[in-house]
Amino acid sequence: MEVSFLKMHGTMNDFVIFHDLNDTVSLAGDQVAKLCDRRAGVGADGVIVVRQSSIADFFMDYINADGSLAEMCGNGIRCLAKYVYEKGLTAKMRLPVETRSGVKILDLIPGPDGTIGKIKVDMGAPVFDPERIPAAVKHEPPVIDLPIEAEGRLFHATLVSMGNPHCVIFVDEDPAPLPQRYGPSLEKHALFPAKTNVEFIRVIDRTRLEMRVWERGSGETYSCGTGACAAAVAANLKGLTESSATVELLGGELEIEWKGSSNPVIMTGSAVVVFDGKITI
Amino acid sequence: MEVSFLKMHGTMNDFVIFHDLNDTVSLAGDQVAKLCDRRAGVGADGVIVVRQSSIADFFMDYINADGSLAEMCGNGIRCLAKYVYEKGLTAKMRLPVETRSGVKILDLIPGPDGTIGKIKVDMGAPVFDPERIPAAVKHEPPVIDLPIEAEGRLFHATLVSMGNPHCVIFVDEDPAPLPQRYGPSLEKHALFPAKTNVEFIRVIDRTRLEMRVWERGSGETYSCGTGACAAAVAANLKGLTESSATVELLGGELEIEWKGSSNPVIMTGSAVVVFDGKITI
Repeated sequence: MEVSFLKMHGTMNDFVIFHDLNDTVSLAGDQVAKLCDRRAGVGADGVIVVRQSSIADFFMDYINADGSLAEMCGNGIRCLAKYVYEKGLTAKMRLPVETRSGVKILDLIPGPDGTIGKIKVDMGAPVFDPERIPAAVKHEPPVIDLPIEAEGRLFHATLVSMGNPHCVIFVDEDPAPLPQRYGPSLEKHALFPAKTNVEFIRVIDRTRLEMRVWERGSGETYSCGTGACAAAVAANLKGLTESSATVELLGGELEIEWKGSSNPVIMTGSAVVVFDGKITI
Repeated sequence: MEVSFLKMHGTMNDFVIFHDLNDTVSLAGDQVAKLCDRRAGVGADGVIVVRQSSIADFFMDYINADGSLAEMCGNGIRCLAKYVYEKGLTAKMRLPVETRSGVKILDLIPGPDGTIGKIKVDMGAPVFDPERIPAAVKHEPPVIDLPIEAEGRLFHATLVSMGNPHCVIFVDEDPAPLPQRYGPSLEKHALFPAKTNVEFIRVIDRTRLEMRVWERGSGETYSCGTGACAAAVAANLKGLTESSATVELLGGELEIEWKGSSNPVIMTGSAVVVFDGKITI
């Protein structure tokens, strides 16, 4: 089977993306593995197939490099938005897209020459209830600056779920070396029965955060959309930032807006077309 | 600038390859870096530009991912041969190709449906003189089973240059863990004033060798063409194999033929077209 695809990335989280609106293509695990192989294939963190949806304009069929299905991917869905618009599959600037965790509303922001520059994604409301994060701690939500020890160092953790658990730690130092050093222990800390993602945050000013992330099951990554949301929410809860903040990640920047309490978190970021190609799989 | 390219690999050593026979394209370092970036670009170990030559049919302009120029690449030149034939740039089955280390003669072996299956490359004669390898040892060439210690373990090294230095070590165990464990020390061992590549070899039978390689300046790699040649030459010198042997690497197999003394080493291997694409750099 020959597949015409785009290689795209969102803050360096990279994807092979193509559309199949007539539902003719079903990818086997070894085909996904081949597409994602960085030497014998195209190379990507995952494959996104844009499919038809009965409840939204498109369905994001996201398959991780290991063949598992992902519920939602904040960096991937921005790429999908740019893809469908620039391929002429839609002319809408507000786009409902079905994912395995429900319908997400995307706002497309024009770039130069008829392209899409940035995309706004409604990431849903944060969850603070320890039982729902889940975190093994008896505490009224939200849990802010909970003492937690790892590798002989005491940290203070603010706990947020964005559909997945996040342990947000504010530090005064350069956060770059921290994920590799403390991520593995914190991910598997007894406090987190389903493990956790870990964000190390340095506050630059009231509108900018510097973040390095250790992702549950993946290790250190260039970018984590839900992690950036959790970090901005935690910073806002602690009174460190305004209702919107730019999060600087290894792979680029994400702007996060949250008006507090049960309001949704809005993430704005770019999506990049790297190249287009054809592969036989 | 838009570039139409093929992504190819030879035993998992991977390349972005395109032709520019009118010499219109000159790649800056940041363009090479972008092409080789595995997330923000195509992703490859190096870029091969097929150019015109005044002394052969084509010139292989090979640029490493870090922007440095390579003299020759045994895995890359097989890809070049398949590329020029399948793109219709030549109909010859014996092809002289200019590289920065002289003209190499390639023999193209047909595969199915008008494709090229394998490619034979004349890799030149091995060099055994310690001064020319270079190796800091007073010994009549060839140097076979020289005791050498690394990380508290005693090995026996056979020294061969294939234009670059190789320290070939035969072991009875699974060689897979050895490059990571002993490669760094052996590469920088005082015996090798210009450092060395290190091959760990297990003899399977008189026609097959299993090899894992630590490359000078690169660390462990999937494949090293000159290393496979050095390993087969060393095995033949020690009477362990016949004049031709198949070398099993992490990235695939290479067949090596050597008739002894100053005869050239002939390497036969495949080249794979992974996908074709277009990128703006």
